[in-house]
Amino acid sequence: MLTNVRSDRVKSVRSLSRRSVRERTGRFVVDGPQGVREAIRYAAERVDDLYVTTAAAERHDDLVAGASAAGIHVHETDEAVLAAMADTESPQGLLAVVSARTHTLDDVLSAGPRLLVLLSAVRDPGNAGTVIRGADAFGADAVLVTDGSVDVLSPKVVRSTVGSLFHLPVVTGLDAKATLDTLSGHGIRTLAADGVGTTLLPDVDVSTPHAWVMGNEAWGLPEELRAQCTDVVRVPIHDRVESLNLAMAATICLATSAGATRHT
Amino acid sequence: MLTNVRSDRVKSVRSLSRRSVRERTGRFVVDGPQGVREAIRYAAERVDDLYVTTAAAERHDDLVAGASAAGIHVHETDEAVLAAMADTESPQGLLAVVSARTHTLDDVLSAGPRLLVLLSAVRDPGNAGTVIRGADAFGADAVLVTDGSVDVLSPKVVRSTVGSLFHLPVVTGLDAKATLDTLSGHGIRTLAADGVGTTLLPDVDVSTPHAWVMGNEAWGLPEELRAQCTDVVRVPIHDRVESLNLAMAATICLATSAGATRHT
Repeated sequence: MLTNVRSDRVKSVRSLSRRSVRERTGRFVVDGPQGVREAIRYAAERVDDLYVTTAAAERHDDLVAGASAAGIHVHETDEAVLAAMADTESPQGLLAVVSARTHTLDDVLSAGPRLLVLLSAVRDPGNAGTVIRGADAFGADAVLVTDGSVDVLSPKVVRSTVGSLFHLPVVTGLDAKATLDTLSGHGIRTLAADGVGTTLLPDVDVSTPHAWVMGNEAWGLPEELRAQCTDVVRVPIHDRVESLNLAMAATICLATSAGATRHT
Repeated sequence: MLTNVRSDRVKSVRSLSRRSVRERTGRFVVDGPQGVREAIRYAAERVDDLYVTTAAAERHDDLVAGASAAGIHVHETDEAVLAAMADTESPQGLLAVVSARTHTLDDVLSAGPRLLVLLSAVRDPGNAGTVIRGADAFGADAVLVTDGSVDVLSPKVVRSTVGSLFHLPVVTGLDAKATLDTLSGHGIRTLAADGVGTTLLPDVDVSTPHAWVMGNEAWGLPEELRAQCTDVVRVPIHDRVESLNLAMAATICLATSAGATRHT
């Protein structure tokens, strides 16, 4: 049982809340039962350590047994150690340290994707996480993220994906302009979702490969990037509302692409 | 210029972050330019006071002029006073104290609504705010909220509605069971949005009056309430994803009702 909140191990795990440390070590933290469960199910070979309190080990005995069976180092800790390791106030008794996997745009394109999302300069962790979860829920083949965006391995993003991060490739560090060119070159239509669009969502053809392109929360997508896209699409909303937030717009576009809202 | 962070006025505004004080005084706080702008535009007669820093008064001179023209008391404050009044760390220089308006279910029903949302035991402020914003964006006639739910006049909810709170009636303090009965009695179909539903969203008839019923974030809608609804509807998602979060599911259902996703 780990009980020393000042140990090097605790400091080392805690330091993964810093982007620079994640980038140097290639590791990140997943906390909470849902995220940890998906990490073990879909990426057990990358789970380096699982830390669990006695209470959580009892509550999630199947999860802990699965981790042990997969050869993951399981460490029992007291509540104080787990809290000291975590970035959140209530880590729910479970925390895993996972090695990041690097996906490339080439990998994604070689699989012949039909539905993609490109996040360009998206800064809010909750938005990025919600979009990754939505992309997963609606069967997107990958999420692409530009280098000016939030780090998708930050604790807040990881938490808000609730495990979806392990379900589909997330490619990071991309240049927006070059990526739009590459997508077009592969016959993938690029659809900017933006309140200034003149094409309405119900009029969009979602039957052929396409990528939803989402810009920054505050200033949207720069004009030169919008101009580069195949089309700029607006979700029709009531006049009195200025805009939908990014996560809502992305969710609706993805659900539409998946046919989750299509009327028979 | 108000500069005394320890004044009774500052304490009085700050105390509105507490639900008990809001309920006793019938007043609440709106902060940030978008929310304040909508309050002035749609409910100027209920805006008792507007507090604004010198910098924000310059940045939003049209808004301040509009407030003055509407007879609202405008008080210039320094940054410290505004920060002390607000519940948030960055109130963006503008804060209004507004008198709450009480809407009743009878008022809403007498207007012959076609699209409603009922939030039952929804606890997260961000979710409640996002649903109110989505209801507004997709032309819902009102949002109904049960008495076990988050207070929609709490600063976090108000902030996340970004002004939508002033666009449509929000009825609070309702009993879920009685409300479902009343809606049915008025010929309004009640559609529980829940991952356990067997009816898929694309198969739902949204052409006649209906209410989306959203349950608690963690445990959903209790079985007895689901059973009382006309139908239990599921947004079709990929098997590997356990569920959509409440705000995402509500947004998709509302967008579908509004025809915002319908293919031509």
